[in-house]
Amino acid sequence: MQNLRIPGPTPCPPETLGELSRQMINHRGPEFADIQGRIMERLKLFFRTQNEVYILTCSGTGAMEASIVNTLSPGDRVLAVSIGEFGERFALIAEAYGAHVRKLEFEPGTAADPAAVAAALREDPDTKAVLVTHNETSTGVTNDVQAIGKAVRAANPDVLYIVDAISSLGCIPFATDAWDVDVATTCSQKGFMIPPGLAFITLSPRAWRAYEQAKMPRFYLDAGLYRDYARKGQPPWTPAVSLYYGLDKALDMMYQEGLEQTNARHHDVAEYTRTRVKALGLKLLAEPRYASDTVTSVVVPEGVNAGQLLGVLNSDFGTVLAAGQGKLAGKIVRIGHMGIVDRRDIDAAIDALSAALDKLGYRQPAA
Amino acid sequence: MQNLRIPGPTPCPPETLGELSRQMINHRGPEFADIQGRIMERLKLFFRTQNEVYILTCSGTGAMEASIVNTLSPGDRVLAVSIGEFGERFALIAEAYGAHVRKLEFEPGTAADPAAVAAALREDPDTKAVLVTHNETSTGVTNDVQAIGKAVRAANPDVLYIVDAISSLGCIPFATDAWDVDVATTCSQKGFMIPPGLAFITLSPRAWRAYEQAKMPRFYLDAGLYRDYARKGQPPWTPAVSLYYGLDKALDMMYQEGLEQTNARHHDVAEYTRTRVKALGLKLLAEPRYASDTVTSVVVPEGVNAGQLLGVLNSDFGTVLAAGQGKLAGKIVRIGHMGIVDRRDIDAAIDALSAALDKLGYRQPAA
Repeated sequence: MQNLRIPGPTPCPPETLGELSRQMINHRGPEFADIQGRIMERLKLFFRTQNEVYILTCSGTGAMEASIVNTLSPGDRVLAVSIGEFGERFALIAEAYGAHVRKLEFEPGTAADPAAVAAALREDPDTKAVLVTHNETSTGVTNDVQAIGKAVRAANPDVLYIVDAISSLGCIPFATDAWDVDVATTCSQKGFMIPPGLAFITLSPRAWRAYEQAKMPRFYLDAGLYRDYARKGQPPWTPAVSLYYGLDKALDMMYQEGLEQTNARHHDVAEYTRTRVKALGLKLLAEPRYASDTVTSVVVPEGVNAGQLLGVLNSDFGTVLAAGQGKLAGKIVRIGHMGIVDRRDIDAAIDALSAALDKLGYRQPAA
Repeated sequence: MQNLRIPGPTPCPPETLGELSRQMINHRGPEFADIQGRIMERLKLFFRTQNEVYILTCSGTGAMEASIVNTLSPGDRVLAVSIGEFGERFALIAEAYGAHVRKLEFEPGTAADPAAVAAALREDPDTKAVLVTHNETSTGVTNDVQAIGKAVRAANPDVLYIVDAISSLGCIPFATDAWDVDVATTCSQKGFMIPPGLAFITLSPRAWRAYEQAKMPRFYLDAGLYRDYARKGQPPWTPAVSLYYGLDKALDMMYQEGLEQTNARHHDVAEYTRTRVKALGLKLLAEPRYASDTVTSVVVPEGVNAGQLLGVLNSDFGTVLAAGQGKLAGKIVRIGHMGIVDRRDIDAAIDALSAALDKLGYRQPAA
């Protein structure tokens, strides 16, 4: 079987995949209300929130859009903290909807500096929202959302703190309420061990107050409709029913392992990945203290073509790694380790990487 | 097994459900490009278009939103032809994005009058787009999209003709290019025999010219990004991979049956449904000449509570019909017959309906 080691979609366990083949039911009937209610209740644990978590039928990008259009108005001043492609995407979405976006960028491989975020907020007291990516899969770096949040609140207690937790939630510790995050989003195909197609969003009371004033247009992604329909045990629009079946099972499994244990396993596997990559004589892109526990970016060594490397890994070794994106295209390859993953998956991936490099004539420099 | 007879999600055949449990692959890799290319090419037959058909990960409502935000600007004058709840929804979406919407409403149970649509267009020559629902599931009525299209073009050759073909395409004859439709949308859980989660959209050259001028904000649903990424065999955002597997198989099956044969089967099953409902002494909501071939609306007889009827059908007879919506709530129940359906499914549903009515003390009036 293929060793799919990209930062999502992640391989799914047979337990959740098996559920996907169940027959359809009426999404406006009592059976669906049971499933939706059970899922919404249990998602709260993973968001570590007391507020409701809504389920959207879309990708993570749709959820990012939802977090913006439900809380902001055209012309609102927004601080977009970017440490890579997904930070850029958050800024692009806000711009597409007419926000006045100021970008605060950090070098690829580094995390956002909380003091710099606070300083930027102090420079522009009219800022309505700060957009932050918790875990940047394009570089393999995790932002310190808690520390940034503290700095944000110290600089501007009323600002909306909007976090993309797509590739972290369920894998890397995240605490919506304790960290005073106003909008948090994630999706199905990363930590939740089911295929893509569902995304999740939660809004704080502060975010709901912003919702009442927000004038960006919205319909499919209107959080208020999700809130109103949730009272009836329904989603506003026809949902991706099969994925609800899978998610229900995935949540059983995640409860069984326990959130802290899941987080610890991800940390262990990530450390193991970094150790094995370095042992091949390869360089990691991310600063060690910010290295992600869900994806590792490996610098492609001089003389090796990244596209060729990924091709040989796939065709000859059944291993699928991800390419670099944007500025990092051709410069790095990325190893995903989120969801159902253990050290053996990493052993197989790194052995394949080593063999593929050999095949391409790369010689590890002498120690 | 439950007899799920609602206007979507429809029951899925084991062949497509079985595909949903396949393992994930890289949506940016060559295997996915193969699947996406094959599906996009074959979807053209069902839309009867030479233009590309794009696959969105969302419900049909998302596709309706896509058809508006990709072609229009705030302030644009739009004529929304409404024969029921989904016509209303189309108008609501356009209004949410700032269009100036004029509604042309027809009585529930009747279809839109092409001459009235043309007259409305002539009254307002600045109209940029006409929104039409091909098949209105809330009433069980099918609009004559071809005749409306002819009237529309005669009144205003440049107007955008935007059609929601969600509950018709693949079941009821539809011809995007021959009928000069500019934007057509549908989704996965109706005629395509797979669960909800995917929607499809195609744009004419006239619609693409409108796209270049359109100023409504869009990101997740930006058709231009779907077009650009399609050249690489990719979707812009992570797609609902499992549903692509199912769709690939469904298209095999639909090609095998043949589009004309599929349409004929839907017509036969619908006629059979209407005959059997009338034989119970019950009234149909839709005018016979516009009665839908994918959903039949049955008027709930005096003295019977619609909610109770649906409850007994589900709990005692394993049959799930749909409730009335909006103004028709409590007044009708709806029988879906789209996708994989034959006369035996209808026999089972009508036998259950008859027995449930008996149980509720309803006595058929003497002939």
